[in-house]
Amino acid sequence: MTDADQAPISAAISIDQDRLWRRHMEFGAIGGTPKGGVNRQAFSAEDATVRKRMVDWATAIDCTVSTDAIGNLFVRRAGTQDELPPIMTGSHLDSQPTGGKFDGAYGVLAGMEVLEALHHAGIETRASIEVVAWSNEEGGRFQPGAMGSAVFVGKMDAADLMQLRDGDGMLLTDALAQTLAATTNLPQRKRETPAAYIEAHIEQGPILEAANLQIGIVTDIQGMRQFRVEITGEEAHAGTTPVKSRRDALMSATDMIGALEAFMADAQDKVRFTVGRFETKPGSPNTIPSYVFFTVDLRHPDPATLIRLGDGVEAICQTHVRGCEVTVEELYHIAPTHFDPDIVAALRASAAALNLPNLDMISGAGHDAMYLATLCPAAMIFVPCEKGISHNESENAKPEDLAAGTKLLAHALVSLANNE
Amino acid sequence: MTDADQAPISAAISIDQDRLWRRHMEFGAIGGTPKGGVNRQAFSAEDATVRKRMVDWATAIDCTVSTDAIGNLFVRRAGTQDELPPIMTGSHLDSQPTGGKFDGAYGVLAGMEVLEALHHAGIETRASIEVVAWSNEEGGRFQPGAMGSAVFVGKMDAADLMQLRDGDGMLLTDALAQTLAATTNLPQRKRETPAAYIEAHIEQGPILEAANLQIGIVTDIQGMRQFRVEITGEEAHAGTTPVKSRRDALMSATDMIGALEAFMADAQDKVRFTVGRFETKPGSPNTIPSYVFFTVDLRHPDPATLIRLGDGVEAICQTHVRGCEVTVEELYHIAPTHFDPDIVAALRASAAALNLPNLDMISGAGHDAMYLATLCPAAMIFVPCEKGISHNESENAKPEDLAAGTKLLAHALVSLANNE
Repeated sequence: MTDADQAPISAAISIDQDRLWRRHMEFGAIGGTPKGGVNRQAFSAEDATVRKRMVDWATAIDCTVSTDAIGNLFVRRAGTQDELPPIMTGSHLDSQPTGGKFDGAYGVLAGMEVLEALHHAGIETRASIEVVAWSNEEGGRFQPGAMGSAVFVGKMDAADLMQLRDGDGMLLTDALAQTLAATTNLPQRKRETPAAYIEAHIEQGPILEAANLQIGIVTDIQGMRQFRVEITGEEAHAGTTPVKSRRDALMSATDMIGALEAFMADAQDKVRFTVGRFETKPGSPNTIPSYVFFTVDLRHPDPATLIRLGDGVEAICQTHVRGCEVTVEELYHIAPTHFDPDIVAALRASAAALNLPNLDMISGAGHDAMYLATLCPAAMIFVPCEKGISHNESENAKPEDLAAGTKLLAHALVSLANNE
Repeated sequence: MTDADQAPISAAISIDQDRLWRRHMEFGAIGGTPKGGVNRQAFSAEDATVRKRMVDWATAIDCTVSTDAIGNLFVRRAGTQDELPPIMTGSHLDSQPTGGKFDGAYGVLAGMEVLEALHHAGIETRASIEVVAWSNEEGGRFQPGAMGSAVFVGKMDAADLMQLRDGDGMLLTDALAQTLAATTNLPQRKRETPAAYIEAHIEQGPILEAANLQIGIVTDIQGMRQFRVEITGEEAHAGTTPVKSRRDALMSATDMIGALEAFMADAQDKVRFTVGRFETKPGSPNTIPSYVFFTVDLRHPDPATLIRLGDGVEAICQTHVRGCEVTVEELYHIAPTHFDPDIVAALRASAAALNLPNLDMISGAGHDAMYLATLCPAAMIFVPCEKGISHNESENAKPEDLAAGTKLLAHALVSLANNE
C-alpha cells in the first residue's frame, strides 16, 4: 500500500448507522429495566452475555479476541505490519445499577462498528486496531471503579482486587470466573503497549446539545477530589435549649457549606463543587442534631487550582464549627488529565477532513482514558446526549450523533494506524 | 380546722426524699434500658405495670382511684369539704422510646409523695387533692402527644383517638383496653373541673443548673410552630454540570436555612429555631441532589413575635429557591400559654415561706399543663436536671432537687386546697 492509496481509504469507510443503533438497542435490552435504562453491573450474568456477543461479532469479521487478569476483553483486527504496536479504542460495557444504554457501551460499540466498516470495505491498516471493553468502570458492584483500565496500565494490582467482595459477599475472583466461563478458551492478551488510545463516549453533560454540535474533542479530564466531612455536636431539646448553649451540628454544616460555596465561586464557571450526600442524626424535628455527615465533590481542570481549592476545605470547615467538632477526610485526589496534543491534533484533522464541526471540551466525568493517558498518547471524542442526562435510566442519544462520532473515530484510528 | 391551725400544717409536711427517689428508681426499672434510660411508651405492658403500682400505693393511703375514656389515672385524697372542686397535680408516666427516668414520672411521683406526706402526718385539707397520670404525653407510639390532657379539657375527642394505630398496626382502643385490664374495676372519674392545676417537671434545659437554683416557677409555655419544607431540583452529574445549569436542591436548602437563621436572630436569645430533620435524594456523592426535605421548629413566648417569625418562613424559602421549586407546609401552630397569675403568686409565696430561692421561667417544651391552663388556673414548677439533658437515656436529676420541688408542690397544693 502506497501513500497515494491512503487518502481515499478513510473516505471509503462507511459507517452503518442502523447496525450501530441496533446493537445499542440489543445491549440495552440485556439488563434492560422497565424504565428503559440498564442494570448491567460488572461481572454479572448480563455482563457475560454482552461479552459473548462481542466474541461472536469479532469472530464473524476475522478478528481475534483475548482477555487478561482482570477480564478486560480485547478484539484485535490485525494490521499489515503486525509487529507495530496497536492503535486502541474502547470503553466499558458495565452500567450503573440504574444506568443508561449509552454510557460506556457507545465507546465499545463504536469501536466494533469501525472494525465492521473496515472489514466490509476490505480496508487494511498498517498497525493493528484493537477494541477493548474495560472491566468494571462504574464501580457500582465492586469498588473502586475503572479497575480494568487501572490494572491494564499498572496502577492497580489484579491479585489484590480478586479479594474484593460485592454487597452480597461474593468475591470478585468468583464473579470474574463466572463471567469468563461464558467466553471459554480466550487467550491472555500479549503484553504490548498501544501506540495510541482514543475513547468515544457520550458527553454526560449539556454543552454539545446547547451548542448544537455533534462532536466534542476532549483535551482534558478535570481533576477530582472527594472529601468526607463529619460534624459532632450535642443532642438537645429544640424547645428548651438557648441558642448560646447549642452545639448544633446541622447549623454548623449549613454554615460550612455556604462558606465553601462562596470560596469555590468562579466567574469562569470551571469549578465543580457538589455536596451530594448529607445525613443527620437523630433526625427528629424537635431535637437539635448532634451529628451531620456530608460529602464534598470538587473538580477542576487546572491542577494548581484543584490543589488550592481542595486544600482550603478543612480550614473553612474548622472556621464554621460553632462549638462542634469537625473532621475532614480526603477520600481521593486524582490530578487532571491533559490529553496528548498529537492525538488531539489528529482528531481535529480528521474532523476537518470529514467536515464535522466540533468543540474542544474538558471532560467533567472520569473515564478509562484517564488511566490510559498515563501509558500512551490518548484523547477522547464526545457526542451529545439528550439534555445532558446520564447515570439515569432516561439517558438517551441520537443515532446520527452516534454515527458521526463513530465516523470520526474510524478516520482517526485509520490515520493513526497508517501513521498518516 | 381554723385559720390559726393552718399555718403550722404546711411546715409539718415532711417529704421523704428517700421514698421519692426509690420510687423513681423503681419506675425507671420498669421499661429500663441497658443505658440507664426508659422505654415505657403509652399503653404498653410497662405502662400498665406502673399504673398498677400507683393503684397499690393509693389504696394503701386511703385514696380513691378512677379513670376516664382515654385512660388517664386519677388518685384522689378526699378533703374535709368534698363538695369543693379538687386541687389537681400530676404529669405523665409514659416515656420517649429512648427516654429518661424523670421526664413526666417526676410530676406524678411528686404528687403521690405529697399524698403520702399528708397521710402520714395526718393532715387534712378542705378541698380534695387529686394526682393524675395523663395518658400518652410523649406521643412516641400514638400521635399526637398530650392526648390524655387534651381529652380531659375537651380539645380532643377520645372516640376519634381510639381508631389510631401504632407503627405495628395495633389500634389505640385495643392497646388501651390491655392497659386498663391491669387495673380492673376502676370507676370512671366524676366530671368535675379542678379549682387549680400545678405540674412539677424537670426543666429539660440548662438554666436552673447554671443558676445553681433548685426551683423554677414557670410563668409561660412558649408557643410553637412547625413547618415542613420540600425542595425539588434536578438530578445531574456532579462532574459535568456547570453551576449555571444546576438546579441543586441541597445548595438551595442550605441557603434557605442560612437566611432563616439570620431572620430568626435575636439579641434576647428568646427565639428557638431548629432544623432537626434534613433528608436528601438521591444521596450519591457525585450526583447533584434533586430533592431535600427539612423541618423548621420555631418557638417563642410572645404570640405576636411567633406569628411574625413563622409567617416569614415561606417568603424566605421562596427567595432562595435558586431555580428549584419549594413548598412550605405548616404542621401546627400552638399559641403561647400564659399561666394564671394567682397560681404563680401562690407558688412564689410558698417558695418564700419555705425559703427556696427560685427563678421565674418560660417553658421551652410543651406539657400537659398547656392544655389544663385552658380549663382552670394553672402553673408549673421546674427542678434542674443534669446538664439540661432530656429525651435521652442519660437524663438525670438530684434526689435533693426532686425533694425541694416536691416540698414546694406540697406547700402550694395545701395552701390552695385550704384556700389560704
